[in-house]
Amino acid sequence: MQVGDFSRIDRNAKIAEDVKIGSFCTVHANVEIHEGTTIEDYCTLGYPTPLAGGKPLVIGRNSLIRSYSLFYEGSSFGEGLSTGNRASVRELTTAGKHFQIGTLCDIQGHCQIGDHVRFQSNVYIAQGSILHDFVWIFPHAVLTNDPHPPNDLVKAGAEIFDHAVISASACVLSGLKIGEHSLVGASSLVTKDVEPHTAVFGVPAKFRCRVEEIMLRDGSNRPAYPWTRHFHRGYPEEIVAKWIKE
Amino acid sequence: MQVGDFSRIDRNAKIAEDVKIGSFCTVHANVEIHEGTTIEDYCTLGYPTPLAGGKPLVIGRNSLIRSYSLFYEGSSFGEGLSTGNRASVRELTTAGKHFQIGTLCDIQGHCQIGDHVRFQSNVYIAQGSILHDFVWIFPHAVLTNDPHPPNDLVKAGAEIFDHAVISASACVLSGLKIGEHSLVGASSLVTKDVEPHTAVFGVPAKFRCRVEEIMLRDGSNRPAYPWTRHFHRGYPEEIVAKWIKE
Amino acid sequence: MQVGDFSRIDRNAKIAEDVKIGSFCTVHANVEIHEGTTIEDYCTLGYPTPLAGGKPLVIGRNSLIRSYSLFYEGSSFGEGLSTGNRASVRELTTAGKHFQIGTLCDIQGHCQIGDHVRFQSNVYIAQGSILHDFVWIFPHAVLTNDPHPPNDLVKAGAEIFDHAVISASACVLSGLKIGEHSLVGASSLVTKDVEPHTAVFGVPAKFRCRVEEIMLRDGSNRPAYPWTRHFHRGYPEEIVAKWIKE
Repeated sequence: MQVGDFSRIDRNAKIAEDVKIGSFCTVHANVEIHEGTTIEDYCTLGYPTPLAGGKPLVIGRNSLIRSYSLFYEGSSFGEGLSTGNRASVRELTTAGKHFQIGTLCDIQGHCQIGDHVRFQSNVYIAQGSILHDFVWIFPHAVLTNDPHPPNDLVKAGAEIFDHAVISASACVLSGLKIGEHSLVGASSLVTKDVEPHTAVFGVPAKFRCRVEEIMLRDGSNRPAYPWTRHFHRGYPEEIVAKWIKE
Repeated sequence: MQVGDFSRIDRNAKIAEDVKIGSFCTVHANVEIHEGTTIEDYCTLGYPTPLAGGKPLVIGRNSLIRSYSLFYEGSSFGEGLSTGNRASVRELTTAGKHFQIGTLCDIQGHCQIGDHVRFQSNVYIAQGSILHDFVWIFPHAVLTNDPHPPNDLVKAGAEIFDHAVISASACVLSGLKIGEHSLVGASSLVTKDVEPHTAVFGVPAKFRCRVEEIMLRDGSNRPAYPWTRHFHRGYPEEIVAKWIKE
Repeated sequence: MQVGDFSRIDRNAKIAEDVKIGSFCTVHANVEIHEGTTIEDYCTLGYPTPLAGGKPLVIGRNSLIRSYSLFYEGSSFGEGLSTGNRASVRELTTAGKHFQIGTLCDIQGHCQIGDHVRFQSNVYIAQGSILHDFVWIFPHAVLTNDPHPPNDLVKAGAEIFDHAVISASACVLSGLKIGEHSLVGASSLVTKDVEPHTAVFGVPAKFRCRVEEIMLRDGSNRPAYPWTRHFHRGYPEEIVAKWIKE
């Protein structure tokens, strides 16, 4: 383990030998960091909370936690997690492989997140949200969990299905289902379920078209969706091969 | 006083004996921290500014300031303040008891905030905002203070009355009055005063209904508002007793 | 050079003699900080990235970087840069004189920014954005760069011309031109170019009026725009003189 200056690493933390930890970091006791992972400066890992029920924070192998990020104990991440700077994740969230969390994102805990999910900057994810695989969430989007705030009787996170896209500054209301390969437009407010392969826009969001009717603006006369046809950066070869075949 | 590693505490700061201060903190001179309070890691308290006119930062007793938070000098908080991580509060704001500030909130100073006000994450409060008691503000909501930006002639914060609720990603324009027990819907833009006990939605926000017409989605056939009838978590017993009686 | 406690300053960084650096700071090697500049606590300057192509971070003279801010290497700022707390700027952005960046702003890099541009809090600027001189961006506004996210084929930042104003919580879609002296209303979604000297509002944003038809709410019966007629705080005398003359 390589550690920068002024970092405070609890001796009970389980940290693989080749992990690199920056300066000014705080690593609490109830943490597992797997091999190949880098933790940058000013991070806090495994912040203790009784709400975690004693579960550790688990950071999968080959992860990159950028500076000023904060993870509570009790959440678990597969391999290849990467964060922007100042990401915050609370307790009891589980995520699959290659989760990308943007700068300033705020994941409130108790969420289920699949593989290859990508958030850009400053996304807010309420407790109880469920995100399946290959979901994209763009800057300043908000997923809520309270149908008539404040209440403690009927809270429910949104459920976002495979390959769905939530655009910048959109807001998704409590308990809604956002279908696979759907598109929520920028600044939209989603107030009812979104059907798979449809695009919705507006406040409140209304059906605009089937996603395959949106054309790529590269002059190629090809559809922009499903995005899996043309956007492959950073995904494993076998997955891209499957996408191309489809 | 219990202090973690690498913290810089000015000897002129007035800190009660049982206060706990984490690691990597900076406490400037013009600060009063009352008994029973915990300051977590990486916080800055009492950041000096000439705009504070020499007034101290006062943190009431039994408060919890979570990590990476930043308070300028010249603001004053009653007992039981709690913040999420990375909260920022500038000078000359006064708040009553049990103010809850969410993660990433940005309070620009010169605000008046009542008792038992609760902000969720990433709320922006412009200078000169006035919030009465029991106000709720949900994630990514914005209160502005400039009717035709930029200008320095006629700035005015919004005024939010008792028990009003501002939902996620909403924006309230300068100088408006948001009536007691009213509800501003998610992603709404409030462009005129909101009457007490009414719900408004949209861009621009329009009257939707009386709040008592919104039903709890728990199958009970009870109204969701006033929320004081069913939501009591964390409020003092005597207040809850009064709410139930009403 | 004056440096606080626990700061880590690379000996290869080029720092003018009278620069003040706070405590808990990290200054990497590939940095130039010019005279008269103050760097507050917990900042990171010159964070290394291969994407910067070896270019340094250049902070012009008489700048003020407030606490917890983070600058990657490869960006360059003219004199009089000032930031709020927790600003983040990635690589290969260039900005002119007197750029003001608000609290929590997130500039994603590869942007061109003119002179006297001012951002308030929590503004998100996508890669490739171009901002001319005297542009104003208000809290929680978002500039995007992807016309059908996610894609890597046709990304393009917005271009914002002189004196244009983007109000709070607005979102500007990819590749659009926002004309000089125009006004984008709060919570608006801009989906097409905005003509100079016009005001647009709504989701999607529509033409509302010529900006000079919006009156100052100070009872003076004067127009609120161009704002250069009445708002002069912090601008150089010779520029203000020119504005008054016009």
